[in-house]
Amino acid sequence: MSEKSRPLRTDARRNCERVLAAAEAVLARDGTTASMRAVAEAAGVGLGTIYRHFPTREALFEGIMAARMFQLTDSSSELAEAADAGEAFFRFFTAVVDNAGRMRALAEALADAGVDVKAGTAEAAAALRTALETLQERAQRRGDLRPDLRLPETLALLAAMCLAAEHRRWEPAARDRTLAVLFDGFRPR
Amino acid sequence: MSEKSRPLRTDARRNCERVLAAAEAVLARDGTTASMRAVAEAAGVGLGTIYRHFPTREALFEGIMAARMFQLTDSSSELAEAADAGEAFFRFFTAVVDNAGRMRALAEALADAGVDVKAGTAEAAAALRTALETLQERAQRRGDLRPDLRLPETLALLAAMCLAAEHRRWEPAARDRTLAVLFDGFRPR
Repeated sequence: MSEKSRPLRTDARRNCERVLAAAEAVLARDGTTASMRAVAEAAGVGLGTIYRHFPTREALFEGIMAARMFQLTDSSSELAEAADAGEAFFRFFTAVVDNAGRMRALAEALADAGVDVKAGTAEAAAALRTALETLQERAQRRGDLRPDLRLPETLALLAAMCLAAEHRRWEPAARDRTLAVLFDGFRPR
Repeated sequence: MSEKSRPLRTDARRNCERVLAAAEAVLARDGTTASMRAVAEAAGVGLGTIYRHFPTREALFEGIMAARMFQLTDSSSELAEAADAGEAFFRFFTAVVDNAGRMRALAEALADAGVDVKAGTAEAAAALRTALETLQERAQRRGDLRPDLRLPETLALLAAMCLAAEHRRWEPAARDRTLAVLFDGFRPR
């Protein structure tokens, strides 16, 4: 994610993905104080490879967040084929909120380090937004979502729920009950 | 707000309120770098009086936030008499979100200073919660809100919208459109 101008060569991309996967595992184990050396060991690559892709720990954290967002976007293509278009939209919305909750520690660490996460994840966020829009429009065409629902409102509500999920741990059952109320606002009356 | 154990004597309370009102005006003018001396001058009281009520700038900021929350709670008693109980509930919900937006700079300053705002505003928050509950129950009895709406979900949604309002400036029109979608989820179907 650190080289945006042109696609990484396949082996470089594979290395990059391996580093990100290892970094996530090390972070889960060591928390946000995880060392770059521990990530290199877990990924089975040299420390130089890590620093080539991610010059700083903050860049690595951003890379993880962006990768997760791209994964979410990828998952939307399957949902775009689902029979129940409304349910598919709700599942995607929930997955994004859920992801924000899981990224909580990372987001806090980056905020504490004064890193503007938005800049490093802008591309991934744009892709996510497009995926949401696609699912919303499909559900609206099928009559599963209210026709007057506009994307800015959806995004504002999604951002609010993500902030809430980042703010404090949310039990899945409580999150589902809360989203259920919101989703009823999304349905046609 | 700094002396919780028993009610302040009337003159002390009046001084306290005068300090808070002055502090708000000075904050609006000078931002969160406002000095205690400037607040004392604006309130027309000695610096000692300020420090007696609010030992630190952070305590003063917390005092302002708590006072605003108490004011909001006070406003709910009028709403509890309104003919349209559902509309009264929505107006109160909107006022709380709106207040969070206006407190944004203060909340940020306190977070930067590492102050746990929750502790200093716990009493005010509890009063606000009770006011919301009262308005919700009334609207539910009148059939203006869905009967299965529970307070934890309302509070989670309120917290999410407040976080969003604190997170970035929200144009009133955009805020209203967004809340309108959410409020439809609150209505009986």
